[in-house]
Amino acid sequence: MANGSGTPQGNGHAAGPAPLDASRTTVTLAASLKPVPPAEELVFGKIATDHMAIAHYDPVNGWSAPEIKPYGPLMLDPLSSCLQYSTSLFEGMKAYLGADDKVRLFRPEMNMARMDRSRERIALPPVDFNEVLKIIKRFVKLEERWIPRVQGHSLYIRPTLIGTRASLGVGASDHATLYVICSPTGPYFRVARPLSLKAVGDYVRSWPGGTGGYKLSLNYAPTFHPQTVANKEGYDQILWLLGDKITEAGAMNFFAVLMRDDGDWDVVTPSVDGTILPGVTRHSCLELTGAHGSEISLYGLPSNLKLHPQERDITFTELEEASASGKLLEVFVVGTAVVVASVEKIGADGKKDIVLQRYEGSFGPVARGLYEKITGIQEGREQFRDWSVVCE
Amino acid sequence: MANGSGTPQGNGHAAGPAPLDASRTTVTLAASLKPVPPAEELVFGKIATDHMAIAHYDPVNGWSAPEIKPYGPLMLDPLSSCLQYSTSLFEGMKAYLGADDKVRLFRPEMNMARMDRSRERIALPPVDFNEVLKIIKRFVKLEERWIPRVQGHSLYIRPTLIGTRASLGVGASDHATLYVICSPTGPYFRVARPLSLKAVGDYVRSWPGGTGGYKLSLNYAPTFHPQTVANKEGYDQILWLLGDKITEAGAMNFFAVLMRDDGDWDVVTPSVDGTILPGVTRHSCLELTGAHGSEISLYGLPSNLKLHPQERDITFTELEEASASGKLLEVFVVGTAVVVASVEKIGADGKKDIVLQRYEGSFGPVARGLYEKITGIQEGREQFRDWSVVCE
Repeated sequence: MANGSGTPQGNGHAAGPAPLDASRTTVTLAASLKPVPPAEELVFGKIATDHMAIAHYDPVNGWSAPEIKPYGPLMLDPLSSCLQYSTSLFEGMKAYLGADDKVRLFRPEMNMARMDRSRERIALPPVDFNEVLKIIKRFVKLEERWIPRVQGHSLYIRPTLIGTRASLGVGASDHATLYVICSPTGPYFRVARPLSLKAVGDYVRSWPGGTGGYKLSLNYAPTFHPQTVANKEGYDQILWLLGDKITEAGAMNFFAVLMRDDGDWDVVTPSVDGTILPGVTRHSCLELTGAHGSEISLYGLPSNLKLHPQERDITFTELEEASASGKLLEVFVVGTAVVVASVEKIGADGKKDIVLQRYEGSFGPVARGLYEKITGIQEGREQFRDWSVVCE
Repeated sequence: MANGSGTPQGNGHAAGPAPLDASRTTVTLAASLKPVPPAEELVFGKIATDHMAIAHYDPVNGWSAPEIKPYGPLMLDPLSSCLQYSTSLFEGMKAYLGADDKVRLFRPEMNMARMDRSRERIALPPVDFNEVLKIIKRFVKLEERWIPRVQGHSLYIRPTLIGTRASLGVGASDHATLYVICSPTGPYFRVARPLSLKAVGDYVRSWPGGTGGYKLSLNYAPTFHPQTVANKEGYDQILWLLGDKITEAGAMNFFAVLMRDDGDWDVVTPSVDGTILPGVTRHSCLELTGAHGSEISLYGLPSNLKLHPQERDITFTELEEASASGKLLEVFVVGTAVVVASVEKIGADGKKDIVLQRYEGSFGPVARGLYEKITGIQEGREQFRDWSVVCE
């Protein structure tokens, strides 16, 4: 009857593959729950919570009903597109538990919008990311006991989309799996000191027409070998160059603070030109810098100090010159995992180290102001616009 | 006793993690075997044979005993490095069944050497690829019934190495899985006509300091969106440009044949400068071209025609000019999957198409000579140096 009726009514496929629908989510709880380790023992990304959220797409049926179910392995065909051709992408988000016992996300709609751009760049099937955010909120509330109740700690959320077409034919994946996992986390860098960077130009992270502007898994593997070499040389992270131009630092966005002739400070970060990840923290730092002295006052900075956020090219040579002339006030890196971290030294083969001024504690003045403000908003201690979103 | 003896004898870990050892391979046969489809129904990379070969690495124990076992899904932690950070790489090889009933591989040591370079580039754990080749030979012999006994058909072999570290920390994977799968295959392109290419420079496949010179999974996903667009515009494959410079075509190496003033022919392919995959077929085409008229005679070409293999930069502008002046004799692309395929047309946005001369059949003269020679060697109909390796 269903196949022979000739009418589209009652046939779920008549309108094409089913879209992702958070309201169809089923929940299966783990039979036993894992112990939550003490906050001070947490290492970034090592352990997952008790459950995961998952949904599957095929071109005939579309998206399956999402499931929240006990955390466990994925079963993947060895031919899968994600394994053979790296059709995979992710986001990094965090959930915070406030003193008011509310669970908050930080600007999650920006992650969802970026995830959709990443998806399109590697031709994965369509996803309604409004629905993904609904699933994430529900999932995070379920895992609330995993959110460390310690300042500077949070539950790291990793939404992931992978291509699961089982064929070696070199082409787009028309099958996909979306999954979300969570991992409780403390400070990304366990060291309580500023970072050292090694400027690298012979390995290149991104280039015009490439994928450096998207949060794709494939941007990371090529960085591991040079990162390992830099670590052996005593550097914490790589400062990625494209020619003389600075792009990113490790997997983080880069900022430099420069003294102007009029006494104001320029807060400079590379433009989003396709080689730079448009980071949520990067964007937030630019907005907060611009708001200092009017809408807000950043901790530790005089409110009559004018900060000028600038998105523009910045070269290694400019850094060297600004350092030599005493105009380079501070350098810091930002990202969801690290939030904000200051830099104390930048080395490069055959060049003199750029040594940054050391400030009290491990932060430069702008880095500290931004760190305090952002974590304050994230943890619900402060309000700023609609940046903090409560999971009801 | 074992832990307390204090002597290294009998302790397999004393000398560090165990290396991969093909002699430890265990074989578990599938309870029932799949039907082998008729050769004419084969689509590239769609079906796998009955078994797979697999081994796992962890930093304490090293490589597990390799297993040949029934084909089935991999169980992967959702945190796995290969899914999150694209630590995965592969090779493409083929096994041929000769009229003499022998199973042959084509220059497999070149694939193994390249696979090791790919492994090093993304910092995966060490593998002895001599042992991998032994495992492949044994596995392929076991799957012999899957090798189509039809000229131009073969068993495609896909050795794959993936990072399996289960952590979101952005760094090298110290766990890995090596697996080999096989898929019977006919001609890569089902169309019996030359290909059309679209020259693309706004999406860029590879870059100096990038990974285009390595056979990494991550080189492929970024090509799927522009490839889909090109297909919709009626082109078969993309001709990748870096500025004006030609790099590759689709996932294949590029060749152009140019008439010289002295009547000889230049057979030109881009140099291996880090942006070009050093293809086994590419390398073989250069060697055979150089040997024509002395060591061998390529089918259909006068033996007194001198062919000059050249590895050098070639630009889109040079192609246009050579086409306009009548000096562009033919263009073809090469790779393990396709072997050799001729090109009939190259388009570019806002430019006049470069239209290549049509020859009898779907091949230009050099392309045909190379195709016949290479498949002859592969299928054991011809001998050339030590290029064809029999699986005993």
